[in-house]
Amino acid sequence: MHQVLINGKWQNSESSDTFVAADPKAGQPLEDQFPISSWTDIENALASADQAFVKLRSMDATRIADFLETYADGLEAESESLRAIAHQETALPLDTRLVGELARTTGQLRQAAEAARSMSWTRPTIDSVNNIRSCLAPLGPVAVFGPNNFPLAFGSISGGDFAAAIAAGNPVIAKANPMHPLTTKMLAEVAQRAAETAGMPDGTVQLLYHMDYADGEKMIRDSRLGAVAFTGSRNGGLALKRVADEVGKPIYLELSSVNPVVILPGAVEESGKKIAEELTGSCVLGAGQFCTNPGLVIVRAGDSAESFIQATADLMAESPIGTLFSESGQSSLNSSIQNLQAAGAQLVVGGEAGGGDGFSHANTVLRVQGDSFLQNPTELQAEAFGPSTLFVVVDSVEQTIEVVDQLEGNLTGCFYSATDGSDDRDYDQIGPHLQQKVGRLINDKMPTGVAVSPAMNHGGPFPATSHPGFTAVGIPASLTRFGMLQCFDNVRPHRLPKVLQDQNPGGVWRLIDGAWTERDV
Amino acid sequence: MHQVLINGKWQNSESSDTFVAADPKAGQPLEDQFPISSWTDIENALASADQAFVKLRSMDATRIADFLETYADGLEAESESLRAIAHQETALPLDTRLVGELARTTGQLRQAAEAARSMSWTRPTIDSVNNIRSCLAPLGPVAVFGPNNFPLAFGSISGGDFAAAIAAGNPVIAKANPMHPLTTKMLAEVAQRAAETAGMPDGTVQLLYHMDYADGEKMIRDSRLGAVAFTGSRNGGLALKRVADEVGKPIYLELSSVNPVVILPGAVEESGKKIAEELTGSCVLGAGQFCTNPGLVIVRAGDSAESFIQATADLMAESPIGTLFSESGQSSLNSSIQNLQAAGAQLVVGGEAGGGDGFSHANTVLRVQGDSFLQNPTELQAEAFGPSTLFVVVDSVEQTIEVVDQLEGNLTGCFYSATDGSDDRDYDQIGPHLQQKVGRLINDKMPTGVAVSPAMNHGGPFPATSHPGFTAVGIPASLTRFGMLQCFDNVRPHRLPKVLQDQNPGGVWRLIDGAWTERDV
Repeated sequence: MHQVLINGKWQNSESSDTFVAADPKAGQPLEDQFPISSWTDIENALASADQAFVKLRSMDATRIADFLETYADGLEAESESLRAIAHQETALPLDTRLVGELARTTGQLRQAAEAARSMSWTRPTIDSVNNIRSCLAPLGPVAVFGPNNFPLAFGSISGGDFAAAIAAGNPVIAKANPMHPLTTKMLAEVAQRAAETAGMPDGTVQLLYHMDYADGEKMIRDSRLGAVAFTGSRNGGLALKRVADEVGKPIYLELSSVNPVVILPGAVEESGKKIAEELTGSCVLGAGQFCTNPGLVIVRAGDSAESFIQATADLMAESPIGTLFSESGQSSLNSSIQNLQAAGAQLVVGGEAGGGDGFSHANTVLRVQGDSFLQNPTELQAEAFGPSTLFVVVDSVEQTIEVVDQLEGNLTGCFYSATDGSDDRDYDQIGPHLQQKVGRLINDKMPTGVAVSPAMNHGGPFPATSHPGFTAVGIPASLTRFGMLQCFDNVRPHRLPKVLQDQNPGGVWRLIDGAWTERDV
Repeated sequence: MHQVLINGKWQNSESSDTFVAADPKAGQPLEDQFPISSWTDIENALASADQAFVKLRSMDATRIADFLETYADGLEAESESLRAIAHQETALPLDTRLVGELARTTGQLRQAAEAARSMSWTRPTIDSVNNIRSCLAPLGPVAVFGPNNFPLAFGSISGGDFAAAIAAGNPVIAKANPMHPLTTKMLAEVAQRAAETAGMPDGTVQLLYHMDYADGEKMIRDSRLGAVAFTGSRNGGLALKRVADEVGKPIYLELSSVNPVVILPGAVEESGKKIAEELTGSCVLGAGQFCTNPGLVIVRAGDSAESFIQATADLMAESPIGTLFSESGQSSLNSSIQNLQAAGAQLVVGGEAGGGDGFSHANTVLRVQGDSFLQNPTELQAEAFGPSTLFVVVDSVEQTIEVVDQLEGNLTGCFYSATDGSDDRDYDQIGPHLQQKVGRLINDKMPTGVAVSPAMNHGGPFPATSHPGFTAVGIPASLTRFGMLQCFDNVRPHRLPKVLQDQNPGGVWRLIDGAWTERDV
């Protein structure tokens, strides 16, 4: 049985319950046994994180930055074996996707290191007249629950939430996604070695693989835990949210999104074929298992739209069927597609489970008329996680707006419009409606690329996420989720945090008396 | 029966249920009848706010700023009659406190206007290489529930939450505090006139006086409402929080706080008399009905502490007994004080209801030993809202830390320490513990002054508030509560919000490629 990482040491779990992951391509369980931690493991991890947090608070942020950079270097050194294990557990392509995902992971860790070192995320604000000074500061140990679909770049001990929580000065208790526990263990090994090299306190990074729901709830309630980050299924996330809300604990969720794409008539006329190719590519990327997968496409009824839908269906049918992460993913995709049909959608192509290597499902296109959608908007916007998309064929701009107004919060919303300006009138009418429903509004491209940019918003209104003011991707903004606002009122100069003192030798950007500056007070 | 303000018109409520406020000084009900709105009123207000929001989103922010400034001017013009009504409903002193509170109110409105005009609150962030741009944008109509203790400066249609929500571009549905409905009505009249003058859409500001809990819950669930702000009792706030959390709606609460004050031994020796005066002044200010009232004072056991407690008790006993806002406030203060005694605190002075004009309660001092506190920390840190404070007499630095570690989240935490540095060792040990428990750490003064400063944090960890990352006072930061992060990825230049376009004629502070600047892209 694999060991858990608690208080800086790899150790046997106190529990004897176990689980195994699967090889998705073989469609078979793997042999490695991982513990389902009992409360004793969690208690030990919380106690250690609590101690680590005390030490981290008095530690210079440059050491945290060193840790993150050493960790990134370590991951690159282990690239081959890491990707081999991740490939076995997820079936993600070894030499393309996993190479890219690892680069994204190390890039994020290095950006987070820079943010920690520059203190830019703390937004120091100084009122020199009243001698009131404030900044964001770490809020305590963060429990990170990672999703199944990005074992590295969103991994519980390597991804964006991890990097943000650590860079903000908080210890992390990582809860592995049970679909790739061995990948997560190897990441944790590299992380722990880097933590030791950089002289981080024991318990800065800890790893548990699994726990039952009651223990997870107890962990979230525990006063030693400062915040929770979760990326995954809506039901799982909402269950954790209920507990966190009850005890007033910050929780950041990324839950579900159908990522509506509005393709205006002029764009279909002008470049329907190209858009059909882009849509198909975006739909089948990573076997459609992206949080920003374009799952709902709105087109205006007419011959051009019919040709466009058919072209997309043909391309989807021709595209190789990818391997899904799990058997449950396969069956849940299949029932989601059946539910869409039961709610009034017609199958255009695909629809059956299987057809690829191991866990898989046919690339699927469905369609529904706008008025049918409006009769059943809740069921017809349910996410079908995988290579599947639903066309909503509307009869007017007005009906487009009605459909958009029925959408829940989403991560993204896209518009394709003609380059000659002929769609601009429609855009101007529909745009403001879609903009309020999404975290990121996109023009003329598909939503699946999520650049790690300071201006990115990987967020959006509920139920895409749990708070519309924050992003999970993009540094330094993603760090602010794990900070509390601390104000120092008339506090004697030598007792102020460095970032709020008069002297600013590091040239931190600070808002002093209404102006942003890198200068001293 | 007084009229409600819905959709830009003063109109009769659709309900026939009514309530009355009281004259606290006379201890008698007032005659004016106010409606307890039924769902029809609320539905009408929501529909109007929804329409107003659509119009506000395409309106230049300078018009919003004009409205806020016109409103501030209008309040100053009505100062005398406004203060007279507020005085009758709250018993707050006409020529001191209410003059100051009105100045705070108009100052806040003008600061909010400036923030709206300068767009500083939107934090525009531009990645010019990837053409990704993001900023905060209004999130929809905000329901504001105001507290009893600041009829103007925290009033539901005039205070900090109102100013922040409006300046961020959101309509407000104000729910008056039922202890000062006539004051709120008069504020709303001035607000509505200013809205008309500035050409704001109908429904930008609306006023209801009261509603039953089920209708309030239904309002919060309604998808047309973007966010909720509430300042008041812990039970009331938590009930609203449960509903908002269930539907994933941002809710900002300010609930309760005992505002711990740690007076270190050297400070007691050096200036005990002066500190006792400051403590007493802070405790009885506004009859103790301040969210930042110093309700828990930690002193080190010894002769000096005994003298200090006695001096404070003498000053409290000598101070005039103020008038409380309500009969329920009087009885709830009295039972809170009795509960503290039942939990192990001893009464030093005061303890009885009455003694002043109308609703009132004796200025009260209680004390408890540190080890007794530690046996019953939950009951002994319950807020007693009014002119009352509890001394916790600890025997060591270590016990101080134990007591601090048992505290819930608070708005403020204060330290008094000797000027000669003799307390600095203690401060260094205790400081980091208190800092994590509070939104604002203060040195050498009492917590009751809350400057409206950009660097202020009137916030803190749960249950002081519902999110430790936000402040209710301080502009522009308080506006960010009512914004959603919107990202524009590859969006064509002419479709971008003004604040994200290449040209920056207004000189808005923007974070472009990692540097804050007022220049163009």
